[in-house]
Amino acid sequence: MTNPSELMPFINALADAAANAIMPHFRAVTTVESKAAVGFDPVTAADRAGEAAMRGLISRTYPDHGVIGEEYGSDRGDAEYVWVLDPIDGTRAFITGVPVWGILIGLLREGRPILGMMHQPFLGERFVGDGANAWYSRGAASKPLSTRRCAKLSEASLFTTNPRLFEAGDRDIERRYRALESGVRLARYGCDCYAFCMVAMGHADIAIETNLQPYDIAALIPIVEGAGGRVTSWQGEPAVTGGNVIATGDARLHEQAVAMLAV
Amino acid sequence: MTNPSELMPFINALADAAANAIMPHFRAVTTVESKAAVGFDPVTAADRAGEAAMRGLISRTYPDHGVIGEEYGSDRGDAEYVWVLDPIDGTRAFITGVPVWGILIGLLREGRPILGMMHQPFLGERFVGDGANAWYSRGAASKPLSTRRCAKLSEASLFTTNPRLFEAGDRDIERRYRALESGVRLARYGCDCYAFCMVAMGHADIAIETNLQPYDIAALIPIVEGAGGRVTSWQGEPAVTGGNVIATGDARLHEQAVAMLAV
Repeated sequence: MTNPSELMPFINALADAAANAIMPHFRAVTTVESKAAVGFDPVTAADRAGEAAMRGLISRTYPDHGVIGEEYGSDRGDAEYVWVLDPIDGTRAFITGVPVWGILIGLLREGRPILGMMHQPFLGERFVGDGANAWYSRGAASKPLSTRRCAKLSEASLFTTNPRLFEAGDRDIERRYRALESGVRLARYGCDCYAFCMVAMGHADIAIETNLQPYDIAALIPIVEGAGGRVTSWQGEPAVTGGNVIATGDARLHEQAVAMLAV
Repeated sequence: MTNPSELMPFINALADAAANAIMPHFRAVTTVESKAAVGFDPVTAADRAGEAAMRGLISRTYPDHGVIGEEYGSDRGDAEYVWVLDPIDGTRAFITGVPVWGILIGLLREGRPILGMMHQPFLGERFVGDGANAWYSRGAASKPLSTRRCAKLSEASLFTTNPRLFEAGDRDIERRYRALESGVRLARYGCDCYAFCMVAMGHADIAIETNLQPYDIAALIPIVEGAGGRVTSWQGEPAVTGGNVIATGDARLHEQAVAMLAV
């Protein structure tokens, strides 16, 4: 049995466990290492340590829950409750020392995201949501998260990790993304999960990505939606399975954007 | 008279003064505001408050020193010592709530950069250098900064704020930048001054930008060079006047990169 009131302290404990495993690896290596040359890379070591810590805690506390993780795949993926883990979202940021990567922890119930956390341990920030509400904390201070109003594309700030990623897809993907980007007031690159959290916090209006995995997005949906935003595929469908995803702070903006992306 | 041993505590005092003026504006506004619509924008207010605080401290402490700042222009620009100030480098990061912007404070003596600091107050990080040495501090902890060895372009991590900026220049600029980017192992976008600090810290190998102002780069030169790196124009000339700039952690890599960029 899972008591929903236990889940909030538990997700904090998972974030702590992952952070303790990962942080010794952050900015620890200052040599150029190639995966091929040394058979090992620091981000993989950190990723695995973080996921193993979380999996251990889940299997001890909720042995009937499932887990899907970036590094160790799926266990009991058909359970009522399934945890979806990305120990380090934003690998390039992690590798290059920039603290805008995050630990992503999502919880699905019967396939639907019901709880999510993004934890950035170097900054000490946590963004957590349950789809109806969302909160930000840093140290002891905590406050509700709320998206901002922005009904017009021409007033919007847009985030994407890497605009070149859209070029790698088919021409239609690139064309649609370019049309959207060219309509906004400001575009910024390079933030992975941190971008979605800035939408939830009301500092940006659109986060858009292509080719996401389920573990890249599951945790972020209850945060952005709990703060009043929307997260869907480019077609306006549920985004929990990943793929091409758009998050917005204002439903009116979402409608405009999906109308441009879905065609 | 300026006693060089006073300058390190003084540059810390300048960074504190700017941070105190700027931080009340960071993440303070969560409405979409257009400069035109309201005649005022929060980043300009923060920029001005930060620069005014630093200028006041400089004119009270060293009335014979010159100052060049982003917001208030040049005073006594022909003095022996000239401070070069960018209160918020990374405006887009600041506006969108992402703490990878920085306060840049450079000091020129007879036109040559002799001291520089980047302070990120939300993170509590300081990067400071005098061209011969450089240090990192966060809270009470302090340590020397050192670039890493990376002799080959194919092993390098490259940072630039926005790859689209090169498209805005002439075709040659874009072509040369693209050639360089296509030769590296990893490219990351969106970091402004933070990228140069990650090169100084040995977590990345190249930071490259186009169309910089003097106040965008003067403070960063003594940091990167103090950590063992090189900062020049794309032609291999001094970068203190801005323009097209490349910083590298390893002089061998710098040679390769300039050979590609200068043609």
